[in-house]
Amino acid sequence: MKPIVSDEGLEILFRKARTHHTWRPQPVTDEELRALYDLVKWGPTSANSSPARFLFLRTPEAKQRLKPALSPGNVEKTMSAPVTAIIATNYHFYEKMPKLFPHNPAMAENFAKNSKMAETTAYRNGTLQGGYFILAARAHGLDCGPMSGFDNAKVDAEFFPPDVKSNFLCNLGYGDESKLFPRNPRLHFDEVCKLL
Amino acid sequence: MKPIVSDEGLEILFRKARTHHTWRPQPVTDEELRALYDLVKWGPTSANSSPARFLFLRTPEAKQRLKPALSPGNVEKTMSAPVTAIIATNYHFYEKMPKLFPHNPAMAENFAKNSKMAETTAYRNGTLQGGYFILAARAHGLDCGPMSGFDNAKVDAEFFPPDVKSNFLCNLGYGDESKLFPRNPRLHFDEVCKLL
Repeated sequence: MKPIVSDEGLEILFRKARTHHTWRPQPVTDEELRALYDLVKWGPTSANSSPARFLFLRTPEAKQRLKPALSPGNVEKTMSAPVTAIIATNYHFYEKMPKLFPHNPAMAENFAKNSKMAETTAYRNGTLQGGYFILAARAHGLDCGPMSGFDNAKVDAEFFPPDVKSNFLCNLGYGDESKLFPRNPRLHFDEVCKLL
Repeated sequence: MKPIVSDEGLEILFRKARTHHTWRPQPVTDEELRALYDLVKWGPTSANSSPARFLFLRTPEAKQRLKPALSPGNVEKTMSAPVTAIIATNYHFYEKMPKLFPHNPAMAENFAKNSKMAETTAYRNGTLQGGYFILAARAHGLDCGPMSGFDNAKVDAEFFPPDVKSNFLCNLGYGDESKLFPRNPRLHFDEVCKLL
């Protein structure tokens, strides 16, 4: 039998974790963001392609650059969050393949020659890494507020070179539990799973 | 300070977890698959949309139906895995929104009327749930072998109705550590992250 994560750990990651909208004034340090990435990076990706990129907006100036792209309902919680991460995807991720997949030097060229496969790989795996990011933040004691309510094209024009595109945003900090909404129901196993 | 997952937990989830290709004969029970889903379901999705669907192939008959869709390099490890999960996406996920997002009954219709937004939401959030699935399996003591080397169209035709599409596959079981390849390097913080 493999070791399993403790019951307390499962509560932090899944059962008791909530999406937060209101933030306590406690800051998030750069060291915490580095420690967070040092967990995320280990999550599995196709051929170790690791296409996700992370931009951490910490200063009022950086937040102001994001503000015009946000849906109205996402402005206040994002402006007040200690950090807002932009989870993005590098569609030229394969340029790093010689480092990431050293035993098969042809891999970079395979992706470079097949732009449809590269695009699919980039977005699927960058999004999987987004999932790892949310759980790694929680594992590390941070609360998350992930959001897709924003104008991706505006964010891309403001923050990224042409080969990098925003995927979703995630506020990070220490949430105010007293401001949480009641938790929404989830689907039962038999509604979404099938055993064959 | 929020509680954080123990160092042992972080090793199980991230630091020491590996993608497995060779499986020990220990089976995975239906109870374990139900317990796995009961963690995955709590992961956050846009408007609690929960678009991922999970098909668990346990029997030789079910595996044989999958076999013709697999890339040659994925056949042996998949046929020998105790369970192969097909992580799929329901593009009509919004039909469940009255249950999932009960305080805003208009949400289902918003998605039904905007097929581009529904498609983007389905795929992004279904893939995030795929990330939660991999980490929840590890948290629960299972080893994973996620794969995208297969013919999605063949899998969809064989297993799913038109509104559900396969995303990726994930073998589940107890891996043979002695058969692992050396771990590939990861990108450093400064290669993929930026602090603003």
